[in-house]
Amino acid sequence: MTRQGIFDHIDQHLDSHICKIQELVRQPSVSLLTLGLRECAELVRQHLAEVGCQETALVDVGDAYPGVWGRLDSGAQKTILYYSHYDVRPVGHETWDWPPFGAELVEMAPYKRVILGRGARASKGPLQTWLNALQSIKAVEGRLPVNVLFLIEGAEILGSCNYLKLADVYKDRLKEAQALLSPGASQNAKGEVSVVLGFKGLIYLELEASGDAWGRGPIGGSVHSATNAIVDSPAWRLIHALATLTTPDGTRLVVPGLEHVFDERKTIGAAERALLQRLQERFGDSDPNTIIPGLSPSTPVKVFKGGLTGKRILEEYLYAPSINISGLRSGYTGPGSKSFLLPHSAVATLDLRMITDMDAQEILHKLRAHLDREGFKDIRIHVYGAYNWGQTDPHADVVQATLKTLEAYGYPAVIWPMVAFGGPWAHIPKALGIPALRNSALGYGDRAATSNEFYVVEGDGKVPGLAETERFCVDLLYNYAGI
Amino acid sequence: MTRQGIFDHIDQHLDSHICKIQELVRQPSVSLLTLGLRECAELVRQHLAEVGCQETALVDVGDAYPGVWGRLDSGAQKTILYYSHYDVRPVGHETWDWPPFGAELVEMAPYKRVILGRGARASKGPLQTWLNALQSIKAVEGRLPVNVLFLIEGAEILGSCNYLKLADVYKDRLKEAQALLSPGASQNAKGEVSVVLGFKGLIYLELEASGDAWGRGPIGGSVHSATNAIVDSPAWRLIHALATLTTPDGTRLVVPGLEHVFDERKTIGAAERALLQRLQERFGDSDPNTIIPGLSPSTPVKVFKGGLTGKRILEEYLYAPSINISGLRSGYTGPGSKSFLLPHSAVATLDLRMITDMDAQEILHKLRAHLDREGFKDIRIHVYGAYNWGQTDPHADVVQATLKTLEAYGYPAVIWPMVAFGGPWAHIPKALGIPALRNSALGYGDRAATSNEFYVVEGDGKVPGLAETERFCVDLLYNYAGI
Repeated sequence: MTRQGIFDHIDQHLDSHICKIQELVRQPSVSLLTLGLRECAELVRQHLAEVGCQETALVDVGDAYPGVWGRLDSGAQKTILYYSHYDVRPVGHETWDWPPFGAELVEMAPYKRVILGRGARASKGPLQTWLNALQSIKAVEGRLPVNVLFLIEGAEILGSCNYLKLADVYKDRLKEAQALLSPGASQNAKGEVSVVLGFKGLIYLELEASGDAWGRGPIGGSVHSATNAIVDSPAWRLIHALATLTTPDGTRLVVPGLEHVFDERKTIGAAERALLQRLQERFGDSDPNTIIPGLSPSTPVKVFKGGLTGKRILEEYLYAPSINISGLRSGYTGPGSKSFLLPHSAVATLDLRMITDMDAQEILHKLRAHLDREGFKDIRIHVYGAYNWGQTDPHADVVQATLKTLEAYGYPAVIWPMVAFGGPWAHIPKALGIPALRNSALGYGDRAATSNEFYVVEGDGKVPGLAETERFCVDLLYNYAGI
Repeated sequence: MTRQGIFDHIDQHLDSHICKIQELVRQPSVSLLTLGLRECAELVRQHLAEVGCQETALVDVGDAYPGVWGRLDSGAQKTILYYSHYDVRPVGHETWDWPPFGAELVEMAPYKRVILGRGARASKGPLQTWLNALQSIKAVEGRLPVNVLFLIEGAEILGSCNYLKLADVYKDRLKEAQALLSPGASQNAKGEVSVVLGFKGLIYLELEASGDAWGRGPIGGSVHSATNAIVDSPAWRLIHALATLTTPDGTRLVVPGLEHVFDERKTIGAAERALLQRLQERFGDSDPNTIIPGLSPSTPVKVFKGGLTGKRILEEYLYAPSINISGLRSGYTGPGSKSFLLPHSAVATLDLRMITDMDAQEILHKLRAHLDREGFKDIRIHVYGAYNWGQTDPHADVVQATLKTLEAYGYPAVIWPMVAFGGPWAHIPKALGIPALRNSALGYGDRAATSNEFYVVEGDGKVPGLAETERFCVDLLYNYAGI
């Protein structure tokens, strides 16, 4: 059995594998600030070339967020599409105990060694872990058991605003893929691995009312609020436009042609129902603030929407639609009162999540038509991302290979038939008609949304270290290939 | 005629008068940041003691913005109340060519010498100019022709959030005042002096929806937006609460009991109509963006509210009510898309301006009752300021003394029967039943809302220098005293 040779190679080259992760983390790539993106994309492209991709390229679609393409043809029977992103969140205002782009190897109890830095956990560590595994297979075996297509984006943090364009450039190549498989870092601190079969659709957009577009109100900048007696207000315009979108409690979209999206619920078959029930039983009577991804006991929800209780909370979280206001901004947005402004623009950031067969573009058209009908033609809709929902059959080969490999490694799999998140990793495979499994694999890190983000290199017995995680990738690939 | 002696004293002591202004500007006092307020208040108190106030005190009303009280009893027949503020705007992000708290004496063409710094124009320069004038009178004459009460606030920039409390502490003393007179810096670069007879009422408040107050939605902090399927949104709650306040075009308050405030217009008598017409004629066909205080040609309004044109623009500006959204904030408020949040709170800052005999407190009660009735009991109203409108008869002694003095100095007076601004300087004299004239005097400076704020020390022939401005204060005081 030659896999031991690969595993030995991993052990012998672990230091250089760590260095490769550090190299990526040390290259800042903050999409929000368009900082270091091209440099980081080029670095990722080099890493793809190093593992043997015959084709590599930066993919420019006329914006500041180049994608990275790679194609590694091994002459194998199966071809997978690997998704990841190289952009990272901003560093933020929280205090870092190490340089955010230093990628230092430090001890962080209970872990003897972690790589510390922005992007270490999301997603440069897991991305390079995968490349390291491929590199060791290539070094020992000469070739991979599958062909791999890479299409890596640089704007995930912004809502994957250009992924459909990136995919369009390679649409003929993407047809080669039989599955989207991008294993990585989906364990919690107890070592449990989330295996996620489905994602809601996600539409992420900004609505802006402005004097510039409206032709009324101040143009190009704010004026003094005292002039409001004679000057129209884009901020009020945005408020009243938003108010036409939902029921007064803000829970249901009332846009004509879209109401049913907020009424309908996915028909859950027996197999999926069983998965749901297993999840519900697993969580039992736990406080939902401790188990629902996205909630936190430190900012608890005490009364849930519509008085939801018990098992219904998880079910609605997974299957109900939502239309959320993620941000509002107009005029002075700091704390306290500052200046008397009549702002020339007002912006709301919204995200809609739903499971519907209506295409995300169609939903956007209906939203636009509604605003036009209501007299708000001037309100600009800027779409950050519009992705359909998608779900993979648990019997699909990628899922079975993952579950089999997890079982061999002894880490418990927690299967989620659906989650409330969404993005290109669901939309693209659905459009291609192929199964998809993103993350749903070994690897642990944390603090990706705050300071001291880390990715574990040396585990604590509950979560694996880097070498074991890379071995897992190797086995998964062979299991998927059926070799 | 002894005034020449006083004028000579001003000329001989001009350097020390400049130093006194610099001393105030060099003490930062940013109310928004609660920076240096007590230190600056204490400095102002010392300056009041130096000009001979028998009583001086910091006035503490349980917040971070101490007032400064002073009483200078000259045994005179008349007593005036002098209003000013010692707090300044934040320095802002614009580039300063000199240190913002350096108070340097620099040349700024066409002015040979200006004092440069935050607060130099608004309002430390004009405040100290007045004190300098008093000091020279005292030095030469031994006593002032009037008694002066000082009640100076440290939160004007925040909407004068504690002035009614400050006034309440000295309510018996304030009854001694026969007029509010606080001359200062109301010239434009051409030397024209705005003399303002009336101010709209001003209610400045914040509406906040929050999970903490509501008991629904996240409490104490935001959660991930994906949880919106099961978690209520304070941001939507704020939107729908705001939408109940006004007509869909955002121009009229539709709160029961307050509609008439937005329908009624002040009955303008013949004398006031004549003043209005003089203003309208003065401005002629000029672009309103160049003449309406608060508008700017750099951020122009091209279509005015309801299609207003011509002379009606100025009239509505002066007499129509308004309800303005000065700021909206919820979640991430920077540019672009950042993180998927379900914010735990959302805030709108509003300012209402109107001419109505309904008391500002009564308007607030009706607003509160409306929100309660509509089911928004949890939405917090934080009042930054609530001030009634007020207007002074042009025949009042303070106005006549000012116009007479201006005439003597040869600067043209532009009389505004009303302006759209408001605050304690209108509310307090109205409550006391005394006439009021704030600013409406010599003095020139600019850039109070941006970088390189300045106050002119040496004029250009069109606007006076500091010595002439101080002389004006002296003459005004004697003219008012009728001596």
